[in-house]
Amino acid sequence: MGKKVILLISLALMSGLSCALAQNCKNMENKDFHKEMMRRAIRLSEESVNKGGGPFGAVIVKDGKIVGEASNSVTIDNDPTAHAEVNAIRKACSNLGTFELDGCTIYTSCEPCPMCLGAIYWAHIDKIYYGNDAKDAASIGFDDDFIYKEIDLAPADRRTKMEELLPDEAIKAFDMWRNKTDKTEY
Amino acid sequence: MGKKVILLISLALMSGLSCALAQNCKNMENKDFHKEMMRRAIRLSEESVNKGGGPFGAVIVKDGKIVGEASNSVTIDNDPTAHAEVNAIRKACSNLGTFELDGCTIYTSCEPCPMCLGAIYWAHIDKIYYGNDAKDAASIGFDDDFIYKEIDLAPADRRTKMEELLPDEAIKAFDMWRNKTDKTEY
Repeated sequence: MGKKVILLISLALMSGLSCALAQNCKNMENKDFHKEMMRRAIRLSEESVNKGGGPFGAVIVKDGKIVGEASNSVTIDNDPTAHAEVNAIRKACSNLGTFELDGCTIYTSCEPCPMCLGAIYWAHIDKIYYGNDAKDAASIGFDDDFIYKEIDLAPADRRTKMEELLPDEAIKAFDMWRNKTDKTEY
Repeated sequence: MGKKVILLISLALMSGLSCALAQNCKNMENKDFHKEMMRRAIRLSEESVNKGGGPFGAVIVKDGKIVGEASNSVTIDNDPTAHAEVNAIRKACSNLGTFELDGCTIYTSCEPCPMCLGAIYWAHIDKIYYGNDAKDAASIGFDDDFIYKEIDLAPADRRTKMEELLPDEAIKAFDMWRNKTDKTEY
């Protein structure tokens, strides 16, 4: 093998190694960043217990920057929808002046309940990191698991009864929406 | 048969008939009331289209009185959680000074999406009347049906990726909650 060939092979190997190291370094940095954001969500959940809210916190990040964070304020604000994720989504949207959070990641101290998971989908958040899971939540008395099971059932089988009424009259608003040319879709 | 017996039987029959008529009347009245409330929710949904919101409205009733009503304001308020049902729940709770709506009925112009159904469960609303259904919503481009399907999947199979992170650290807030003696549960 000529010296030139050996040199080229060495360079290629070194370049590959350096790339692999850089990639590894980036992954490590990302992992550290994810942990840092999760610890922030966890801190919010602990502070929330101390100030009288539910034990939940959430942080939303876009392009490496926090765009919204919140804890649960159901009992403080008399608002059953004021879970940490919903509050954080509302703050992030308000801060960014948008109703869509594409490109965002949410770090939540607990696996989202169906309401919050629905909110995350409507907001188009890209990725969810969570600390505690739904079973942990059930173990301290939160109904997430029950609500997940209810949503899985056919409407007629759910505990909360649902009845259709006046569908022929309700459809008119949908026709108005379909025919509106200057609507803001979401 | 003596005259007394005939009289007693006649009285019993008349009383039963009168009860049945009264019950029927009450049911008719109730049905008329439910329709009146649904028509109000439908009117809100139509007004919402005209003022630039989504085509949805909701009314919450307790003991025959409206305690909160709203239309969808997602794009108007830059808030992806501002569906008609969530907005109406927030208003009703604010008006009644509570985070629970036991004894309430919600009339919504469209079958609730998973986020709103979750909110209805967290609020402990007793009954749901809806006009349009999830398929009608899908036909004008709303993702309810897709989100219902996603929630049915195991977390690992969902489109939006979910990853557990630092559960050993997250659990501390739950322990704090469990041990807190003066907490407001919900």
